[in-house]
Amino acid sequence: MFQTVTSALDWLGIIAFTATGALVASRKQMDVVGFVVLGTVTGIGGGTLRDVLLGLPVFWIREPAYLITCALSSVLVFFAAHSPESRYRNLLWLDAIGLALFAVIGAEKAVHAGADSTVAVAMGVITATFGGIVRDLLGGESPVILSREIYASAALAGAVVFVVLTAVGTPRELAVGTGFAIGLLIRAAALRYGWSLPRYRQRPSRPGDPPL
Amino acid sequence: MFQTVTSALDWLGIIAFTATGALVASRKQMDVVGFVVLGTVTGIGGGTLRDVLLGLPVFWIREPAYLITCALSSVLVFFAAHSPESRYRNLLWLDAIGLALFAVIGAEKAVHAGADSTVAVAMGVITATFGGIVRDLLGGESPVILSREIYASAALAGAVVFVVLTAVGTPRELAVGTGFAIGLLIRAAALRYGWSLPRYRQRPSRPGDPPL
Amino acid sequence: MFQTVTSALDWLGIIAFTATGALVASRKQMDVVGFVVLGTVTGIGGGTLRDVLLGLPVFWIREPAYLITCALSSVLVFFAAHSPESRYRNLLWLDAIGLALFAVIGAEKAVHAGADSTVAVAMGVITATFGGIVRDLLGGESPVILSREIYASAALAGAVVFVVLTAVGTPRELAVGTGFAIGLLIRAAALRYGWSLPRYRQRPSRPGDPPL
Repeated sequence: MFQTVTSALDWLGIIAFTATGALVASRKQMDVVGFVVLGTVTGIGGGTLRDVLLGLPVFWIREPAYLITCALSSVLVFFAAHSPESRYRNLLWLDAIGLALFAVIGAEKAVHAGADSTVAVAMGVITATFGGIVRDLLGGESPVILSREIYASAALAGAVVFVVLTAVGTPRELAVGTGFAIGLLIRAAALRYGWSLPRYRQRPSRPGDPPL
Repeated sequence: MFQTVTSALDWLGIIAFTATGALVASRKQMDVVGFVVLGTVTGIGGGTLRDVLLGLPVFWIREPAYLITCALSSVLVFFAAHSPESRYRNLLWLDAIGLALFAVIGAEKAVHAGADSTVAVAMGVITATFGGIVRDLLGGESPVILSREIYASAALAGAVVFVVLTAVGTPRELAVGTGFAIGLLIRAAALRYGWSLPRYRQRPSRPGDPPL
Repeated sequence: MFQTVTSALDWLGIIAFTATGALVASRKQMDVVGFVVLGTVTGIGGGTLRDVLLGLPVFWIREPAYLITCALSSVLVFFAAHSPESRYRNLLWLDAIGLALFAVIGAEKAVHAGADSTVAVAMGVITATFGGIVRDLLGGESPVILSREIYASAALAGAVVFVVLTAVGTPRELAVGTGFAIGLLIRAAALRYGWSLPRYRQRPSRPGDPPL
């Protein structure tokens, strides 16, 4: 039962991220192979790095259904993405869903592999953000991880909530669901209300300071 | 016999890609160590990612001859690349040869490691394109994978042809040769005649549409 | 005893690189989570790639103290980096220390894992430069590895010295210390006196040459 739930969420996250990659491809007016490449890399990137770092077999190597799903989703966007007025907003919201899902699933897989809590949280953040980083680098977009609004922090919060709940013995379905909900709510609020954390500020310069 | 053929093609691909990396270094007027670093990373990048993803030992770790060959080829370009009139064209043609070779060799190594056909095709595309992606990111060039002309599609075609021929029982030498020839012909035609696939187009906007 | 020395140097290198990542975050005025992400990625990036390529377990997966140290160092910079007049210079000097340390430690870990001398030198250069490459890509900085002054060459020199001394039977503490000192001296001289290697130059064009 639990396997089914996380597996369904995993697929949902992969499809959401694949769609964001394909939407970046549409912004760059790529051809259909470009959609498939950028969509697939975004969809499987985070989980791939997670598995390599944990020393596990990479999840899509033994199960071609992942690649086929990514390719088909990308082709679908190629033919269906014709609603320019909402494309960038769709991208950000799909990215938010993928971010919150992968933060929890990445942490869960690390816990399952016997990793320590700190490492599990880091793995959640890595899984949640890496696909989008590669997407933005390859697509020549300004990296969403550097955006002014809360982004990596939402993944961090979701992963921390999941790991803490798991550590105190919460049933996994509940821990997964709560972590996901917290991560998504924080990122959604950041998108909608422009939430951000205090940023680093230089001390105001005083007369007599050496030049920067 | 077959091992000898693929091994020779592998070396040829590595040298071709190394030369493209060194040519990018020459465009950036780097020093000789910059040539060696960029050349080597480009030459071994695709195969390295392929081996890490497949869970195989990285091919150059146990065999220093690869690194030495990459370094020497890069140094050679440093002293011999003085034909500016054709440098960028040479880069593109060497890249085409490396692309077609690595598409087939990457797929072949995946099939050999027991991977499914879809995964083998993906591994061909990854092996063929990753070295060039890193080269262009590090060298600050516009990524050739985003170019208007057919690029990743040529690697995809070569890998598909190899995998299909192998699946129907074609002798490996023939499957390798045909896949390589198809990939190279497509990329060469794209370079020479500007072939490209239809690109994503926005639906023409109509009066009353919301702004983008 | 030797383990203690290299382990202490390893920690020092990680903290130095983490601080450079956090300083880039301060230049981009990120929030505290951005400091932690960029600092940590820079601090552990080189060693992570080294371990993945060598097929070893990634060093920070079983030992959460690494991540915690990186996070705390980054937070410290967030609250303490208020000396703008020297920030970029500090970054370059910390980077120089990390570079020289990781060149030797990366080569040492490869030798310890049974790698050949050439591979060990390559692994030193990779370990020394990869964290900074990722830092500059993610932070949108001009990559320090492409700087005009000697950079990768200093790591190369330090790794070569260590590997040669080890091959001729020098006690490890001495080999580590000498390799580190050579690497740091070369990079320091490059920073202070603008040392650089001869760069690739095009042959001066002659009348009748075709246009570039």
